[in-house]
Amino acid sequence: MTDSKRSRTVEWDDPMLGAEAARQMSGLEYMQAMIAGQYPRPPIAKTLGFHLVQVGEGRAVFECVPGEYHYNPIGLVHGGLAATLLDSALGCSVHTALPAGVGYGTIELHVNLVRPITTQTGLIRCEAEVIHVGRTIATAQGRLVDAAGKLYAHGTTTCAIIRGDS
Amino acid sequence: MTDSKRSRTVEWDDPMLGAEAARQMSGLEYMQAMIAGQYPRPPIAKTLGFHLVQVGEGRAVFECVPGEYHYNPIGLVHGGLAATLLDSALGCSVHTALPAGVGYGTIELHVNLVRPITTQTGLIRCEAEVIHVGRTIATAQGRLVDAAGKLYAHGTTTCAIIRGDS
Amino acid sequence: MTDSKRSRTVEWDDPMLGAEAARQMSGLEYMQAMIAGQYPRPPIAKTLGFHLVQVGEGRAVFECVPGEYHYNPIGLVHGGLAATLLDSALGCSVHTALPAGVGYGTIELHVNLVRPITTQTGLIRCEAEVIHVGRTIATAQGRLVDAAGKLYAHGTTTCAIIRGDS
Amino acid sequence: MTDSKRSRTVEWDDPMLGAEAARQMSGLEYMQAMIAGQYPRPPIAKTLGFHLVQVGEGRAVFECVPGEYHYNPIGLVHGGLAATLLDSALGCSVHTALPAGVGYGTIELHVNLVRPITTQTGLIRCEAEVIHVGRTIATAQGRLVDAAGKLYAHGTTTCAIIRGDS
Repeated sequence: MTDSKRSRTVEWDDPMLGAEAARQMSGLEYMQAMIAGQYPRPPIAKTLGFHLVQVGEGRAVFECVPGEYHYNPIGLVHGGLAATLLDSALGCSVHTALPAGVGYGTIELHVNLVRPITTQTGLIRCEAEVIHVGRTIATAQGRLVDAAGKLYAHGTTTCAIIRGDS
Repeated sequence: MTDSKRSRTVEWDDPMLGAEAARQMSGLEYMQAMIAGQYPRPPIAKTLGFHLVQVGEGRAVFECVPGEYHYNPIGLVHGGLAATLLDSALGCSVHTALPAGVGYGTIELHVNLVRPITTQTGLIRCEAEVIHVGRTIATAQGRLVDAAGKLYAHGTTTCAIIRGDS
Repeated sequence: MTDSKRSRTVEWDDPMLGAEAARQMSGLEYMQAMIAGQYPRPPIAKTLGFHLVQVGEGRAVFECVPGEYHYNPIGLVHGGLAATLLDSALGCSVHTALPAGVGYGTIELHVNLVRPITTQTGLIRCEAEVIHVGRTIATAQGRLVDAAGKLYAHGTTTCAIIRGDS
Repeated sequence: MTDSKRSRTVEWDDPMLGAEAARQMSGLEYMQAMIAGQYPRPPIAKTLGFHLVQVGEGRAVFECVPGEYHYNPIGLVHGGLAATLLDSALGCSVHTALPAGVGYGTIELHVNLVRPITTQTGLIRCEAEVIHVGRTIATAQGRLVDAAGKLYAHGTTTCAIIRGDS
């Protein structure tokens, strides 16, 4: 059994450093600053090994290399990884559309898993784009693909938009 | 900045040890053996700090204490934690309904997030139960509550059932 | 081909009669008055042949007898009937939880179809209950069963709550 | 109250005429023949007043003019109309990808409603396209827009694919 033991050490920073700064910035500015390394990657991104690699107006892209530490009890990457990457990309795509002082929260996430992910899959890329931004609600859609563009999962979200003191 | 650094070391076992044994057992037997410690907890459960605490026919319960290592860039527990716990409990509730030699895979997961989760939330419990088990498809529903029973999230899933050589 | 022709005539009332009265009443009062025949059934209920048969706090029940006029191009009742019945029951269950002057709108509907419905199915019953009612968002779940309690579909919704001048 | 009365007569044909022919044709051939008027429009399309106007490989488009007969008890077009149009377009987009002798059934439908629809909205168009077609499961996405391209709803589906005697 000795050979079956593995370990991984995760380091992260106080997530409130970035979260507090974020309140003074538009979503796009905050995420660009995060990509530039001016704010620490959020703890969940360290815990699950994923990276925000690109943001634009209404658009966000994350990457991750699935590892054994993502495995479920039936020998595949847990569906929660795809759900987490989609939730990240979808939420961030909405956040890029919001000015400083306007927050958001995911109220609903829908994920379709179309192929299993394993450690053989290699780098996966999760791209999301905004569909609708209203006064109180925004929606977005995203896809999770491998380096060759093969689709593994897709999803949509609804976010509540929290404007000022409303 | 020194004070803002945190770290956590995760240890896990080869997930294929359990996954291979699982093929010879009913879903309920496998998960009962896992709770009894006869098979290692799956890596994702170690990575995200959650536990399968109860299984029954058509039913599974997980627990987790949300920590800072689950935080997203806006200062709350990432929605991916609720999605992962729901996917686990929903999938396992379906698995409890399957005999030896019959597998399953999540094809669709829907999550509603009704309250933010923080490190103040304390122990959360995710309970799921099967709604429908057909020949090729099963569905289930679940809820995520704190120790006082307050609701944080709920969700449903559709799983494909993989029978023998079909 | 003559024998293949069928026809059905639908009569309804101006839907704004009830909709305007509804603004002065709680959701529960409005729907109780509708069951009592004090307001006309909404046009869609006439068009698709369904009835609100019961409401209570956080709860609504509809009934329908599926007919050939609900059929899709592949010889079964169209999935839109189950979706419409669920949307009705889910939305009304939320509405029962709202006082006079507070409105709602469905922002998201998720439907699982677990068995086909045909003209052989007979009377179907769609029951929904509220899961969560917050300040700006409510969620509900529902099931569609036949007279013997056999399940045909289930679903969830998220509604936006529209409070006064907010 | 006399002025408030309206009526509408719907005529349709035996839906099994087309459904039986469909078994000998690919999905695309069947729907092209339906657009060409070689098979009757399905009863639900007559009941709810919508039309299949275009099909292509992995793609289907429906149109509808919302009327008072689609209204719900709160004075708007019932969400079930958007759900039915999306279910139609999504299912047909999947059907276009299937050869003769291969059937499908919707197992899950997710709808986001981003704006209310009224009789002022005018002609709406529902376009769907396949995302993934696997051996046993297919997924698709669709949008519901008005003549100016303004978005009212969007959605996704999962269909089970039923191959031969499997």
